[in-house]
Amino acid sequence: MTDSSAPAYEAAPYSLAIDAMGGDHAPDIVLAGLDRAADRHPSARILLVGDEAVLGTLLPRFPKARRICEIRHAPSSISMEMKPTAALRLRDSSLRMAIDAVASGEAGGVVSAGNSGAMLALAKIVLKTLPGITRPAMAAVNPSARGDVVMLDLGANIACDARNLVEFAVMGEAFAKAVLGLPAPSIGLLNVGAEELKGDERLRVAAEILRNSALASQFHGFVEGHDITAGTTDVVVTDGFSGNIALKTGEGALKLVSLLLQRVFRTSLLTRIGYLLVRPGLERMKEWIDPRRYNGAVFVGLNGIVVKSHGGADAEGFAAAVDVAMDAVTHQINEKIRDRLAQVEMLMASAPEGEVAASSSAA
Amino acid sequence: MTDSSAPAYEAAPYSLAIDAMGGDHAPDIVLAGLDRAADRHPSARILLVGDEAVLGTLLPRFPKARRICEIRHAPSSISMEMKPTAALRLRDSSLRMAIDAVASGEAGGVVSAGNSGAMLALAKIVLKTLPGITRPAMAAVNPSARGDVVMLDLGANIACDARNLVEFAVMGEAFAKAVLGLPAPSIGLLNVGAEELKGDERLRVAAEILRNSALASQFHGFVEGHDITAGTTDVVVTDGFSGNIALKTGEGALKLVSLLLQRVFRTSLLTRIGYLLVRPGLERMKEWIDPRRYNGAVFVGLNGIVVKSHGGADAEGFAAAVDVAMDAVTHQINEKIRDRLAQVEMLMASAPEGEVAASSSAA
Repeated sequence: MTDSSAPAYEAAPYSLAIDAMGGDHAPDIVLAGLDRAADRHPSARILLVGDEAVLGTLLPRFPKARRICEIRHAPSSISMEMKPTAALRLRDSSLRMAIDAVASGEAGGVVSAGNSGAMLALAKIVLKTLPGITRPAMAAVNPSARGDVVMLDLGANIACDARNLVEFAVMGEAFAKAVLGLPAPSIGLLNVGAEELKGDERLRVAAEILRNSALASQFHGFVEGHDITAGTTDVVVTDGFSGNIALKTGEGALKLVSLLLQRVFRTSLLTRIGYLLVRPGLERMKEWIDPRRYNGAVFVGLNGIVVKSHGGADAEGFAAAVDVAMDAVTHQINEKIRDRLAQVEMLMASAPEGEVAASSSAA
Repeated sequence: MTDSSAPAYEAAPYSLAIDAMGGDHAPDIVLAGLDRAADRHPSARILLVGDEAVLGTLLPRFPKARRICEIRHAPSSISMEMKPTAALRLRDSSLRMAIDAVASGEAGGVVSAGNSGAMLALAKIVLKTLPGITRPAMAAVNPSARGDVVMLDLGANIACDARNLVEFAVMGEAFAKAVLGLPAPSIGLLNVGAEELKGDERLRVAAEILRNSALASQFHGFVEGHDITAGTTDVVVTDGFSGNIALKTGEGALKLVSLLLQRVFRTSLLTRIGYLLVRPGLERMKEWIDPRRYNGAVFVGLNGIVVKSHGGADAEGFAAAVDVAMDAVTHQINEKIRDRLAQVEMLMASAPEGEVAASSSAA
């Protein structure tokens, strides 16, 4: 067991603990994903948590995964439908035991494609938030015209105050440094932007704090919805309600275009020939905005790295989530959050109490 | 002058009053837009408000517009940068005089491509909200895989309570009936949707009211960001913050794909040939999701039809905004709101006061 104030991952015997039983296609896809990840992280040490009998039979089929994995038996698992409250009571589930391994300092982080509500609830209770962080947030990388963009919160917190938003900025910066490898990521606060619209007090207060903080030179100010895909800033900070809606609206718009393109290409013999000619480029483009490539959302702000893969992810998608977790562990995202928070914390304390602590949004 | 409780447009001598001086390319584009609109609405009667000398010289160049327009001199105009407070003091601006014409019952509605903040402020003060409506909302039509979708609020109100959302549902239904011509539009409340995420009290209360209202059979329940472009419901209701962000994120995603497609087609000689083969289909697709086709946002909930065109709209875009205004006037959107509100009002009154009146969102 490590001291609770020290980051658990620093000298963890396992790089990651993996919930082998979580997700729509577990455990097969999990092992297939680890087989791919093993190529990219040959020196990783993985604690594979799940049904020993099943995993023992399956693992030999994935020789690369087998080389980096060690199985730990978990008698039960959490279904996709299970309520978080029920999941909390199940102390021997694969997800719980994987998170426990992070809490005990055995593993630097955990990856699961299982039930996200259960994962967030368990991670909050077992790992607890980092000192100085009020609420963990869900962060992920998205494509833009100018490269990858980190967005948070994507739905862990419906309502957020100014302090939460400043903390998200700190965590988003650390995420962009650790996972995207950017030395000084720029940060934008998502707003409706247009002058004529009624402002939002919590956003103005958060902006004011950031403008006077150690992040001042990286803080770009307010950004709007279209700035996310334009890549105006490397990090986009917002509350979990807007963040979730922005994420899914963007995905929906991409899906709409893809549907329309299919119609266009199927119109006639000529368009089918045209399609064959541009197909290699379209495939590259598809790959570039492929949701699998962007799989792996991180619950940032906890004592340990917690990565959620899409439940329906395939092997490539799961491997991407493992990549994110490995980057976050290796590049010590939590150390970065801690350092930055120490610099920003003072400003939050000196800001007028009522404003910083103000709930959600101006009525 | 009409009785203030009677809809002003019923027997208005002018179908619409047009702010001829508002917008980046006014008055030329306004007149060119009216020239196109005149083809579609030959019996419309337009009050063209602006600088008489300028308009008198320009109008003869647009013979179709000239046939349906009558010029009214306005000595001043509101710049795009003017603060709403300053605009309110200017009683002889083209925008103010156009809105005044609606208030006096001379015109059924007003269209402007000018300063939106000034327009909303003036419209609220001069026209006032419809009886029973707490706050006007900004509504517009967006493309989806299953046809056009009405979304509101797009930014007129940053924070909204359950009552506002129910009113938006009523106004959105009336909009979809009047502008899209749907007999019984389905309605969705935008939410983060996933079970595991913390709910939002105002959304649950609004849903409860709608589920028990005269709109029950049309109320689909909660929808998520991707449902907007999927066209899951004909109307999507949300607060102005999320609505504005969803709108701009969707637009941004479409722009990203368009950029990527250009890159794909320019890769090589073969892809250029491929592009030539699929171009007609791509043009149709572009036209289909063309923002000009969707130009014209309505400030619904006021005593009179108020339509905002994009400031940078071209003639085709401005004509589309005139179409929206004509549809709203002709199909009596405010009558529809009034009728529906009478049915829903009782339920809001009977709902627990604290919940319906609860501010913005659950902390």
